[in-house]
Amino acid sequence: MDYYSSQISKLIEELSSLPGIGSKSAQRLAFHILNMPVEHVEQLSAAILEARKNVRYCKTCYTLTDDEICPICKNEARDHKTIMVVEDTRDLAAYEKTKKYEGVYHVLHGAISPMLGIGPGDIKLKELMQRLQGDITEVIIATNSSLEGETTAMYISKLIKPAGIKVSRIASGVPVGGDLECIDEMTLLRALEGRTEL
Amino acid sequence: MDYYSSQISKLIEELSSLPGIGSKSAQRLAFHILNMPVEHVEQLSAAILEARKNVRYCKTCYTLTDDEICPICKNEARDHKTIMVVEDTRDLAAYEKTKKYEGVYHVLHGAISPMLGIGPGDIKLKELMQRLQGDITEVIIATNSSLEGETTAMYISKLIKPAGIKVSRIASGVPVGGDLECIDEMTLLRALEGRTEL
Repeated sequence: MDYYSSQISKLIEELSSLPGIGSKSAQRLAFHILNMPVEHVEQLSAAILEARKNVRYCKTCYTLTDDEICPICKNEARDHKTIMVVEDTRDLAAYEKTKKYEGVYHVLHGAISPMLGIGPGDIKLKELMQRLQGDITEVIIATNSSLEGETTAMYISKLIKPAGIKVSRIASGVPVGGDLECIDEMTLLRALEGRTEL
Repeated sequence: MDYYSSQISKLIEELSSLPGIGSKSAQRLAFHILNMPVEHVEQLSAAILEARKNVRYCKTCYTLTDDEICPICKNEARDHKTIMVVEDTRDLAAYEKTKKYEGVYHVLHGAISPMLGIGPGDIKLKELMQRLQGDITEVIIATNSSLEGETTAMYISKLIKPAGIKVSRIASGVPVGGDLECIDEMTLLRALEGRTEL
């Protein structure tokens, strides 16, 4: 990229190292940034650095937060006896958007994947087991409905069940508004298996 | 976005203000950044700010560069009597990638667009006319092949011709490797008009 000056090249290079941003998008973004007001660029640059420097794991649920304990774990109005286990902070956010779940969370930061060499020791599973020493009535496993998510769900349920704690798994089936003809066979079979009486 | 801590929300908000980055992509990028090594995040943050702060217009051709005069204008091996007029720095980069053009450039930073209220005074046209006071043998107009690009090309050629300088326009036609049946009629007509004898 010697047709750009060194600082523009550097910016394009940095941006294109981000996921989902190819060299064309990186160029478009770079020139957009070069045309933004300086104050706005300062905010963007600072937001990136500040978030990375200050964000850490919540000491209880291991979600990403900028405090010792995240707002959900701090909230006394929530049901601290029900823990929903999710793969990452974005999954937690997805359930929070529903505004209906009143329990707390546990963020694993990954899923067991023998293919990728990620074992039970590589995710926040030990930390979950420690939390279960306390007064917990239900663990809802909300890992993704992928091979890794299912493997992790199975593994966790086998670990927890002996402790006499209720373990559930979120339902798998046809998404609301989903058109049956567009849905894969595995999902249709899951929906059939998980049918409920009316 | 109160299900994320304030600094994560701020980061997502800043990222989603960039062009082509929606709220889902901004979340994905934000969590990628939060998981990057601190040193790398520092580099990204600095590259953004440094580029914006130090990049300015080349005093000769008005391309974006981090020096008084850009590397192309500084290069004595290039033909400084031939000026290619482009709409922006990315167009310059596109021609530089061909590695065949040996002249210099003039970056207009836009094109005349009565629709958007961009007139000849809003682009670097006066600056081009000033350069033409010097010893210039040819001006190659390489604005885009859009309505605005064509309007700008026509306008510039009418301005320059009286000065007795050769003015040319890059050819419009079927792209190399292009399939005739997939190409719009305007392009096909242009290709016909611009046919060359074999």
